[in-house]
Amino acid sequence: MKKGTKKVLGLTLASSLALSAFAAADGFTKQEVRAKKPEKPMNVIMLVMDGASSSATTLARWYKGKPLAMDEIATGGVRTFSSESAITDSAPAGTALATGNKSNSGYVGVLPSLVNSPGAQKVKEKDAFRPVANVLEGAELSGRATGIVATSEIQHATPAAFSSHHGNRNNFSVIAEQQVYQDMEVVLGGGKSALLPESNGGTRKDGENLISELEKENYDFVETKADLMKSRSEKIWGSFSNKALAYDMDRQTTNPDQPTLEEMTSKSLQTLSKDKDGFFLFVEGSKPDWAAHANDPIGMISDVLAFDNAVQKALNYAKKDGNTMVIALTDHGNSGLTIGNQNTNKNYDTTPVSAYIDPLKKAKMTLEGVTGVLKDDLSNMEEAAALYGITDPSSDEKAKMAAAKTKAEAGVLLPKLLANRANLGFTTGGHTGEDVFLYSYGPKKPYGMIDNTEVAEAMAKGMGFSLDKLTDELFMDASKAFKQIGATVKMDRSNANETKLIVKRGRTEAVLKADKDEMVIKGKTYELNSVIVDSNGKFYVPKQAVELLKKNS
Amino acid sequence: MKKGTKKVLGLTLASSLALSAFAAADGFTKQEVRAKKPEKPMNVIMLVMDGASSSATTLARWYKGKPLAMDEIATGGVRTFSSESAITDSAPAGTALATGNKSNSGYVGVLPSLVNSPGAQKVKEKDAFRPVANVLEGAELSGRATGIVATSEIQHATPAAFSSHHGNRNNFSVIAEQQVYQDMEVVLGGGKSALLPESNGGTRKDGENLISELEKENYDFVETKADLMKSRSEKIWGSFSNKALAYDMDRQTTNPDQPTLEEMTSKSLQTLSKDKDGFFLFVEGSKPDWAAHANDPIGMISDVLAFDNAVQKALNYAKKDGNTMVIALTDHGNSGLTIGNQNTNKNYDTTPVSAYIDPLKKAKMTLEGVTGVLKDDLSNMEEAAALYGITDPSSDEKAKMAAAKTKAEAGVLLPKLLANRANLGFTTGGHTGEDVFLYSYGPKKPYGMIDNTEVAEAMAKGMGFSLDKLTDELFMDASKAFKQIGATVKMDRSNANETKLIVKRGRTEAVLKADKDEMVIKGKTYELNSVIVDSNGKFYVPKQAVELLKKNS
Repeated sequence: MKKGTKKVLGLTLASSLALSAFAAADGFTKQEVRAKKPEKPMNVIMLVMDGASSSATTLARWYKGKPLAMDEIATGGVRTFSSESAITDSAPAGTALATGNKSNSGYVGVLPSLVNSPGAQKVKEKDAFRPVANVLEGAELSGRATGIVATSEIQHATPAAFSSHHGNRNNFSVIAEQQVYQDMEVVLGGGKSALLPESNGGTRKDGENLISELEKENYDFVETKADLMKSRSEKIWGSFSNKALAYDMDRQTTNPDQPTLEEMTSKSLQTLSKDKDGFFLFVEGSKPDWAAHANDPIGMISDVLAFDNAVQKALNYAKKDGNTMVIALTDHGNSGLTIGNQNTNKNYDTTPVSAYIDPLKKAKMTLEGVTGVLKDDLSNMEEAAALYGITDPSSDEKAKMAAAKTKAEAGVLLPKLLANRANLGFTTGGHTGEDVFLYSYGPKKPYGMIDNTEVAEAMAKGMGFSLDKLTDELFMDASKAFKQIGATVKMDRSNANETKLIVKRGRTEAVLKADKDEMVIKGKTYELNSVIVDSNGKFYVPKQAVELLKKNS
Repeated sequence: MKKGTKKVLGLTLASSLALSAFAAADGFTKQEVRAKKPEKPMNVIMLVMDGASSSATTLARWYKGKPLAMDEIATGGVRTFSSESAITDSAPAGTALATGNKSNSGYVGVLPSLVNSPGAQKVKEKDAFRPVANVLEGAELSGRATGIVATSEIQHATPAAFSSHHGNRNNFSVIAEQQVYQDMEVVLGGGKSALLPESNGGTRKDGENLISELEKENYDFVETKADLMKSRSEKIWGSFSNKALAYDMDRQTTNPDQPTLEEMTSKSLQTLSKDKDGFFLFVEGSKPDWAAHANDPIGMISDVLAFDNAVQKALNYAKKDGNTMVIALTDHGNSGLTIGNQNTNKNYDTTPVSAYIDPLKKAKMTLEGVTGVLKDDLSNMEEAAALYGITDPSSDEKAKMAAAKTKAEAGVLLPKLLANRANLGFTTGGHTGEDVFLYSYGPKKPYGMIDNTEVAEAMAKGMGFSLDKLTDELFMDASKAFKQIGATVKMDRSNANETKLIVKRGRTEAVLKADKDEMVIKGKTYELNSVIVDSNGKFYVPKQAVELLKKNS
């Protein structure tokens, strides 16, 4: 949530949005709506398992030997295409889920510049790359506590789409900075490098140490599971790895200090639920996607099951609470995994479950774990293969392993050998375009065969605000908006790592730095209800910034 | 429905089943239940698109350029595994959907002899191959009108599972005969050969002419779309091909006299809805599965869209009626079709919808249609390829076509060339094991992530009967059942094409022929409320047969 005065302002803004939406729909007066407003604001928990097709959940269920938590709340399907492609990238998929707008490959929280998918909303040329409000920002401004959790770098595409606005998903520097200034209560995942300058072992070129900034903002900054679990802070930032967290199956061996996705989810719920105004929590099981790209069924199963445990925690909370919407889904298919392949062309109907699962059960680590063990000279190839479940290799398997020359080749070969043993098929190393399952629970939940953008709309409606109106409030074209109050603007991009907007109105000068939520007017710093976004040659600022300048000049 | 006295008996039986189920659950007396019974019995329309995975419906939607009728009623997912395999055959899939019992590959309407899938219901050795009641039989006995429709031979696995009981799905002779004696009002599809003896150009080895039998039973036997459409009979048997009907896309060219699946569905609804006691209709789009086996995306799209048109008709009826449950689903995945393949490993996120759809739009016929045109000597290969959308072949494509030696090879090559052009992937020529979408509408509809057996249970519950109790009523082990009234039985299998059971009680002799619904006692023929099933060395007869003998001896 927005703190201090911002929270009040946020509440006012969001309430007015909610009220006007209600009023428009039902013809109520504001007074009547206030009277009818439920006592307890609705919570939303949104969980994304990245790149996990139907076959991945089916296979994970067989592996587990029991129903999944998700099974209990299957309610329909989701169409996943982006503005420009039948098969989406995670960035536009996240943008659709978070903001209700389809976008382009690599675009996070901004509108597309290219729209050619039939049925996708057209965007005016002038609006390309315009930031669009997401449900987390709406939740913040309504006074709710907010949080994001991921097993990848927290700056990765999907969590980024729920907490930042930028045309390039790979620019972790910008995304990290915006996240730091989003006033979230809980941020848990990997990606510590993007918080630190190069001089401190990080990757930031702007010299900023965002961890210091987080500490100034009273976050409890934690780096281990133990520290996370014992934190009693109302604001926690957990950064458990410079890059991504380990796969669930490998964690005990390679990174025992990292928390599980389930533990991060539980801690988030415990922390966020202290806020009487409700909360919004985004959780991503990030790595089923990465395993799918590598055609690694073990990584897929490992992290689908880890994700499902997080869904179980969310569902337990929602059932107890009674006023919490839970949504779970994958953002797109990946890899074309199938139970059945060319081995089963003729005998699929008599091939028992064990023929798929037993070979997989022999694996002790995911492909990532195994290639971590494999020596560069491949001298321990058979040992690594055994760790991956390829025990007692056949002469054919041995010959193929002997022919591998590099770790990269081994990383391609081993999943092929395992897939063959387990009778699994793959069509691609990329994403795929099929409709995916929708899982949802609780009041006002979405259901049926919906577009991914409708997921955002359902969450916003459930929490009582309009994303379109919020976008208009938070992301005004600064040049135009300030001009309307007789101010002039100058964009200063002399330092590419810290661009800023300089606004003059009469004798008053104001400065707004990109990716922060601050405005300095005559040397005094005001906190804003949105981050400033520098996108495609334009600065976007909240209406509040214009009002503040008007008032203080 | 069961006609004449049978209908009365059927009603009595089914009502008692329904009442006892109600009574057990709610503690009502029979009187109370009768008072609460809704005025209008519920109708059920069950539609199966055989072997059409999520990618097939997604691709069909893009091809169509508009939402599917199914999209409107997506409600969850279905697990499809059989008793013995992670990937089901259509016969046990149909058996699960129709009877609520998982079974083995090739088994139609009978219990499995092998159960090794985790979570699958165990079956006692003595019950292997025992016939189990299906929802169509329950509907008949409750007085409802019933019908089955398919684009394959009507004796094919899925329609067979809704209307017959046999351990071998390929025995069309037995299946056809049971269907003829099932007292359905509407039967529309292919498979005329199985109705006629070899001497009349058919495939029956028992010498029976079942078309003559149908005419005796007052069916309007029609063989063309025109005759179907003009029929005003309350009983229609349409047999529009010796084998399967044409793919929807090819029909106008190759078989213009055949009706579409939509037309057959409409005519069925028009005919069945005349019955004031309600109806049950089963509809199968049979050939998406065959196209998938051939990795032919054109056939898949053609017949998924034809199926969807039938769903639209069912849905229109249900919406207007208000008391009709509609269920649509595929019985299992097939082929591992994906939007995206090795061509899109790296650029999937920027590949437009047109890159998948435009190459497909060039095809004028399905693979079946095209191979029908292709000459045995392959001399018109390029013409056939063009008909399949492979226009202006590249030198590589030309070389591959020139290398094909047989029609069979061409039939494998052409879909590969098209899939490559359209960026589609396939993992197998067989079925696949992923969970599939559930589509449902209307009162008491099933929803969520359910097992395929739960589909049957939901339909039976909706229509007010218990399938387990019905099985006990309709399929008693004849040897045991007749022994209990002091009778002896002899199985006569001297004519393998017409086995029979001879029962003696005192001086009274009764004869029951397999696959018919008749019992001859002292030379007089009584019609029974179920077909007689000869399965795995045992005869199964309805309780009614025992009662009839007791009364008449």
